Amino acid sequence: MKIENLVPKNIQSLQPYEAGKTIKEVRKRYEPKRISKLASNENRLGCSEKVNQAIMEASREIQDYPDPLASNLRQKLADLYQVSESEILLGAGSESIIGMLCRTFFKDDENAVTANGTFVGFFVQSGVRGIQVKKVPLTKDYRFDVEGILDAVDGKTKMIYIANPNNPTGTYITKKEYRNLLDEIPENVLLVMDEAYHEYSRSVVDYPNSLLNRRKNVITLRTFSKAYGLAGMRVGYAIAQEELIEQMIKTKLTFEPTRLGQAAAKAAMDDQSFVEKSVKAVIKEKEKLYDFFDEHEVRYVRSIANSVMMILEDENAARSFTEKMMKQGVILRRTHAFKLPNCIRITIGTEEEMNHFKESYSKLLEMSEF
Amino acid sequence: MKIENLVPKNIQSLQPYEAGKTIKEVRKRYEPKRISKLASNENRLGCSEKVNQAIMEASREIQDYPDPLASNLRQKLADLYQVSESEILLGAGSESIIGMLCRTFFKDDENAVTANGTFVGFFVQSGVRGIQVKKVPLTKDYRFDVEGILDAVDGKTKMIYIANPNNPTGTYITKKEYRNLLDEIPENVLLVMDEAYHEYSRSVVDYPNSLLNRRKNVITLRTFSKAYGLAGMRVGYAIAQEELIEQMIKTKLTFEPTRLGQAAAKAAMDDQSFVEKSVKAVIKEKEKLYDFFDEHEVRYVRSIANSVMMILEDENAARSFTEKMMKQGVILRRTHAFKLPNCIRITIGTEEEMNHFKESYSKLLEMSEF
Repeated sequence: MKIENLVPKNIQSLQPYEAGKTIKEVRKRYEPKRISKLASNENRLGCSEKVNQAIMEASREIQDYPDPLASNLRQKLADLYQVSESEILLGAGSESIIGMLCRTFFKDDENAVTANGTFVGFFVQSGVRGIQVKKVPLTKDYRFDVEGILDAVDGKTKMIYIANPNNPTGTYITKKEYRNLLDEIPENVLLVMDEAYHEYSRSVVDYPNSLLNRRKNVITLRTFSKAYGLAGMRVGYAIAQEELIEQMIKTKLTFEPTRLGQAAAKAAMDDQSFVEKSVKAVIKEKEKLYDFFDEHEVRYVRSIANSVMMILEDENAARSFTEKMMKQGVILRRTHAFKLPNCIRITIGTEEEMNHFKESYSKLLEMSEF
Repeated sequence: MKIENLVPKNIQSLQPYEAGKTIKEVRKRYEPKRISKLASNENRLGCSEKVNQAIMEASREIQDYPDPLASNLRQKLADLYQVSESEILLGAGSESIIGMLCRTFFKDDENAVTANGTFVGFFVQSGVRGIQVKKVPLTKDYRFDVEGILDAVDGKTKMIYIANPNNPTGTYITKKEYRNLLDEIPENVLLVMDEAYHEYSRSVVDYPNSLLNRRKNVITLRTFSKAYGLAGMRVGYAIAQEELIEQMIKTKLTFEPTRLGQAAAKAAMDDQSFVEKSVKAVIKEKEKLYDFFDEHEVRYVRSIANSVMMILEDENAARSFTEKMMKQGVILRRTHAFKLPNCIRITIGTEEEMNHFKESYSKLLEMSEF
């Protein structure tokens, strides 16, 4: 039995996922005095206190399968967004929803169009489905090239994938660009707007909300993994017209998300003040980081998400910097998997964590490690 | 935009999942005095008390993504089964693992062979992948027809799927039949042994354990959803040779199972006495149900799982009986989706729940509702 013969080509050519370093691994390897995990764009403030109580209650029925459609949570989201329940689909995080999109809509010869530097999850899930992905280069200022993307659409294009704001760059397409997209996109092409960082971005005047002025071919993705602080529970959702949701339900796992995930997300929604507090803290620390970078003449990309991307000389410099910071307990994320080998993504953490970042950076500078 | 044009044929023809009735729905609709949920083969004793504490602890890091490979849990399973960690893959329940199997191994023109009356999850996931499934009829005594299955294997067969014991019938293939399968199956055909009910069955002398005398093409599936009582958390796993696991990892979601799921499963493994207690309780109540059925001349299939299948006259009788029992608060599972329209699957619950079943049954009998 040879693996080459056993497995289809698209699976053979997929790279196995490289997990980021965990706190435990870094502690064991480098024994730093403290650790700041700024690698995965999680909410460094944790999650709402209301969540714990909800989890304890839901735990009493942990032996029972979850509600397949997460009806209670679905209803609550429908109320929040003023859409029908049948226009919402819950899944085990946005990556799972993207998997559903790829399984549900693509025929073998159809393609997707997106940027070359965007969320890895879309590359992985489209690769699993084995379809062609046209990757349009980001603009020079690390933004989605909306014109370029529209130009790449052909008769076999089924889907355009846009992360807004984009991950890992933190940049966004503007209201005007979004309107342009809606006007120009053929009506039989699905437009997936991945708004995982929506809560961090919604106060930006020029940032479009894809739930307004909805078209039939737009699918909005949002998540509880970021501002709501529930990455460990895997809960994300899609909002789209009912006919699309009905098809997507067919390719979801029967029992995702988990029972405790559903309960946690529902409780988290009841504490919008926690979300607001988190968003404010990120905006404040982000501004301070910009100042620090300006002072030290570091190149970076301005972001409306909860992370900021540094631009280094080349891939070697990015690798070396990440490694040296890790030795001091600051875990950062290299963005080579996002096709940006010379960049590093820094999650905006607490004041303490950001100070740890800055102190570690300054220390490297003193040691002439640059 | 017409859905017929938008979606590939294999997705169009998939039936959306029909969720079983929840306790809440039944309560609302029929207002029965009490409810016994005997529909989903969950552990009616709940789960180990150790699980709650583990969940509380894991909740402190709920904002962080889960460990992609569930290293701690993987190590613990490797120790338990005396296999290498690299031979184990954790996923969001067995259905998720089956999804990985379908995505990882099938080329478009390849097929799978299984029984016509077996776990719906395999039909769904192979349908999503769009491959042909050859469904060999069960034997007259509702067992997998091993000879028939081997006969159905052709040059394009990639996988044989066997649930052992089978769901929904509770029957099993014997050690001799399993040995026969191993001897006759071509080495380039994968043999998937879904042993979700393993813990309930392992004391049966003639029941084979697919982890013994392992061959390179055998993939064993087990789960925390049944005897461990963690269906709400979605944790299942595959054990197979490293080369197969490496390929499957490529098609799993990066962050399944959840952080709390991993913690719960690990804690549950530390309480084998709970599993033993659960298994003993099921065996005891199952024997009593057989007696009850014999006394009332009900046809049923003897089972080594935590459920027993009743055989009724026809589909109408099965529908009507299920409905009438539900009105009395006893939730049962019709097996039409498993291609057994005249049968009903009854989960073996607590003594109290089984008495509720029997009393409700007797009541129907008195009212001449048969």
